[in-house]
Amino acid sequence: MNETRRAVLDALADGPVTGPALAEDHGISRTAVWKHVEALREAGFEVESASEGYTLAGVPEYGAEAVEFGLDAPFDVEYYDDLPSTNDRARELAIEGASDVVVLADQQTGGRGRRGREWSSPSGGVWMSLVLRPDVPPARAPLVTLAAAVAVTDAALEAGVDAAIKWPNDCIVPREDAERGGDKLAGVLTEMKGEASRVSWVVVGVGVNVNVDPEELGPDATSVRAEAGDVERRVFVQRVLERFHEVRDDPDAVLDAWRDRAATLGQRVRVETANGDVVGDAVDVTEHGALVVETADGRKVVHAGDCQHLRPADGG
Amino acid sequence: MNETRRAVLDALADGPVTGPALAEDHGISRTAVWKHVEALREAGFEVESASEGYTLAGVPEYGAEAVEFGLDAPFDVEYYDDLPSTNDRARELAIEGASDVVVLADQQTGGRGRRGREWSSPSGGVWMSLVLRPDVPPARAPLVTLAAAVAVTDAALEAGVDAAIKWPNDCIVPREDAERGGDKLAGVLTEMKGEASRVSWVVVGVGVNVNVDPEELGPDATSVRAEAGDVERRVFVQRVLERFHEVRDDPDAVLDAWRDRAATLGQRVRVETANGDVVGDAVDVTEHGALVVETADGRKVVHAGDCQHLRPADGG
Repeated sequence: MNETRRAVLDALADGPVTGPALAEDHGISRTAVWKHVEALREAGFEVESASEGYTLAGVPEYGAEAVEFGLDAPFDVEYYDDLPSTNDRARELAIEGASDVVVLADQQTGGRGRRGREWSSPSGGVWMSLVLRPDVPPARAPLVTLAAAVAVTDAALEAGVDAAIKWPNDCIVPREDAERGGDKLAGVLTEMKGEASRVSWVVVGVGVNVNVDPEELGPDATSVRAEAGDVERRVFVQRVLERFHEVRDDPDAVLDAWRDRAATLGQRVRVETANGDVVGDAVDVTEHGALVVETADGRKVVHAGDCQHLRPADGG
Repeated sequence: MNETRRAVLDALADGPVTGPALAEDHGISRTAVWKHVEALREAGFEVESASEGYTLAGVPEYGAEAVEFGLDAPFDVEYYDDLPSTNDRARELAIEGASDVVVLADQQTGGRGRRGREWSSPSGGVWMSLVLRPDVPPARAPLVTLAAAVAVTDAALEAGVDAAIKWPNDCIVPREDAERGGDKLAGVLTEMKGEASRVSWVVVGVGVNVNVDPEELGPDATSVRAEAGDVERRVFVQRVLERFHEVRDDPDAVLDAWRDRAATLGQRVRVETANGDVVGDAVDVTEHGALVVETADGRKVVHAGDCQHLRPADGG
């Protein structure tokens, strides 16, 4: 949405306001006012027109304008009904030089998780990718993943879901008896391009099972619908973006928030790495996104791997 | 060069060897032997043919086959007489999935340094880019840059040049009276693509002023020619690749070798960073490629910036 249309929309929300008043307040012609109102109606906003002026009477359920309306964070939104992968589109935008743009799709037909794994993304979920250009070295880029995990977890908690972070990049609903610590609610997949000393762009893909049935997803998956009932996706996305924006420039805030929400810390874990399994107690996360594990052979710092939460009796 | 041609070439180097013997030893037809010999002649190898068999009598000055012949490191080489940028071609290969491939050009028409700066790359220099797929997190990728700087410096030292490393990514010939610590001999430019926890590829661009006149380069530049006379570029490239391969999988070896060769450590420096100048004594480098500076306000870790070596009397 361009700046003027956004301003007109805000005025309608505070309405009623007449066409001539809108024209004068925004320095545009009455014809331009009419065009903005029609475009907003086209995008799904209900605009009532009466003798005392225009009033906003309804907001579209989802879409670029719906998410941008009332969003308290500086992101532009691109929306698609379906897309093979929001990360693919975001990568194109990143290469073209975009910054602080969000690519949103109602469904993805070729969604992917970490290491190219399939990721089911039916209509009703939140599938989005953020294009960012943080001025940090690559070593600090993992903080972006941690910040996104914090933001998604907070949005899920606000929706009434008992959500927690599972290292490295998942949001789960913990279960006492689950093999892998709990059922998967969301995942974060970060891609980056950079020089040795500076990131040129980061694309953070976020997939959240929101208003979908767990049966539509893979095994060990859950959804906001299953845990707490359907929510407005528009508002859910806004909360994720606002929370992400609040913490993203403060590494200490990100790390503290991540630790607070982490189901993995304090757990006995088995991490399958390229160099074999690491088994021990997960005690911390580093600013490079690595998990710190106390093992029988001492403290190990694990950068990548699949993590199982073990029951106290297991492993060792 | 394919495996068989490489094996035939090695046999010729140990020659004389007859066509029938080559055919039998390598399980190929006599026609195939003849084709390999012709292809090697085409690539510039002198192959003498006499009654006692074939003998290798000369090696081409430069090129893919020339560098691969006798190379004690597992790299395939692609050679171009000129190319806009070896990094651009290497990036294409990386995206296609290549690994341990070296792109080499006699000259570059659009060479670039760090942060998009112009980089003069006339014929006679060594302009090359390595395509690598190290199994490391992005936080460890800067070690690749450090390893390349070590390798270039060692090749220059072997050529008789009094070379040293200047943080973050240059190789210089130190001068007592120089503004920036010395004259520039070589630079390393690393690009990477990855997920948050794992690098997918790294392209290391290496530019060395070898057999060129300093007048062809920018200000404050020098060359192997100016310092110690011309060298065989073929051998120079082989030394860089072999030395790089020796150290690349051993972070401690890379860091120790870097520290030994660093002109920057022990110097009083001014580093211009995005957040202002950092002035103090450069005391160490981290595994993330950052410079550790003792300042009047305590120890600072600088990830990126332009670094000046100050005379003891200068600066703050």
